[in-house]
Amino acid sequence: MPTETHFQKELEELKGSLLRMAATVEEAIRDSVQSLVRRDSELAQKTFEFEDRINQMEIAIDDMCLKLLALRQPMAVDLRFITSAMKIITDLERMGDQAVNIAERVISLNQEPQLKPYIDIPRMAEIAQTMVKDVLDAFVNRDSKLARSVCERDDLVDGLNDQVVRELLTYMVSDPKTINRAVHLMIIARCLERIADHATNIAEDVIFMVDALVIKHHADVEIGRSE
Amino acid sequence: MPTETHFQKELEELKGSLLRMAATVEEAIRDSVQSLVRRDSELAQKTFEFEDRINQMEIAIDDMCLKLLALRQPMAVDLRFITSAMKIITDLERMGDQAVNIAERVISLNQEPQLKPYIDIPRMAEIAQTMVKDVLDAFVNRDSKLARSVCERDDLVDGLNDQVVRELLTYMVSDPKTINRAVHLMIIARCLERIADHATNIAEDVIFMVDALVIKHHADVEIGRSE
Repeated sequence: MPTETHFQKELEELKGSLLRMAATVEEAIRDSVQSLVRRDSELAQKTFEFEDRINQMEIAIDDMCLKLLALRQPMAVDLRFITSAMKIITDLERMGDQAVNIAERVISLNQEPQLKPYIDIPRMAEIAQTMVKDVLDAFVNRDSKLARSVCERDDLVDGLNDQVVRELLTYMVSDPKTINRAVHLMIIARCLERIADHATNIAEDVIFMVDALVIKHHADVEIGRSE
Repeated sequence: MPTETHFQKELEELKGSLLRMAATVEEAIRDSVQSLVRRDSELAQKTFEFEDRINQMEIAIDDMCLKLLALRQPMAVDLRFITSAMKIITDLERMGDQAVNIAERVISLNQEPQLKPYIDIPRMAEIAQTMVKDVLDAFVNRDSKLARSVCERDDLVDGLNDQVVRELLTYMVSDPKTINRAVHLMIIARCLERIADHATNIAEDVIFMVDALVIKHHADVEIGRSE
């Protein structure tokens, strides 16, 4: 069946594009946090360039999906895969926006002396990056086990964020001159937390897609789907 | 053509469900902010119940859309409408989550004396609510003018958020005892800002859908779409 084969090839292309978009988002996150750690405003500035690239990728993949829906009229599993892809690229694009938010804060922060050594924030970024990578791998390989491990890592990131906020509050209370910088850092931590949330949203969709379980809304309770 | 008519009826049902979901989200936002203004922890607690209702609505509408895609195999305009609906419900569900975040902060805040009279935050909430209502009306009626007005209101909300942050920073600097409450209030303002962002995301999709303009990524620059 030549049409079938052609459709499979198109799906593979879609998967490749998704993975490339995710890799670009990972890079944007890494650069934004590296610009913080190294106090490198030039690198922060470079992060802004990712925004356009990521947006173009979103538009191209969205088009690809609409064409597949219109021309191939896929059923069941493939239909769910394509509609999920359309939601995933929205999440990826918003992660890219968060990396840009981080870079903006870094540029402001670099105008004052460094408040403290950064330990938890780079750790959060590292976990968030692997979550982005793994959740896209989980999606294209329909690997719900890997997707579940992404959901679990969200708690780690939330825990680190709470730790960052608590520590920064101590700085703020003991010296009002630190407040401005502390607020910037809190917002950076929150951006990373939101990136992890987006990865978790995707992971929940992957698990749903693979297992038809709505763990998103009722952990581990299977509900009757009428598909 | 009876099939055509039936499909149109199904699309009308989809529109009705979307409007009901949006109305529920509006209600959640209103209640969460009212619980802040009135210092009513019981009302804040009640806001948590919206989460489940909104989640169930999301699942039901998602199912509805998948069935329409699979069974009706819509083309062009209807195809774009249905895939947009699937993205919109994700945004609506996340707005509901933000309302719950607000309610959680309110419960913490109500354990301490009120820091200041709330003026800008209820104003932000009011604008955010009308943005949610209007953007869904814009979507179901394919009204790109109304959608554009939603995008414009996002700047108002951002401006109010900046004002809230600046004011709270002054409190924090002058009295460290206010820091905890000020951080809660900053996060509440940020939740409202995020709700407005979600509404703006939807508005951009509506404009894109109606005008096939990518204002999302390049303000007012029309790019050649290959649909």
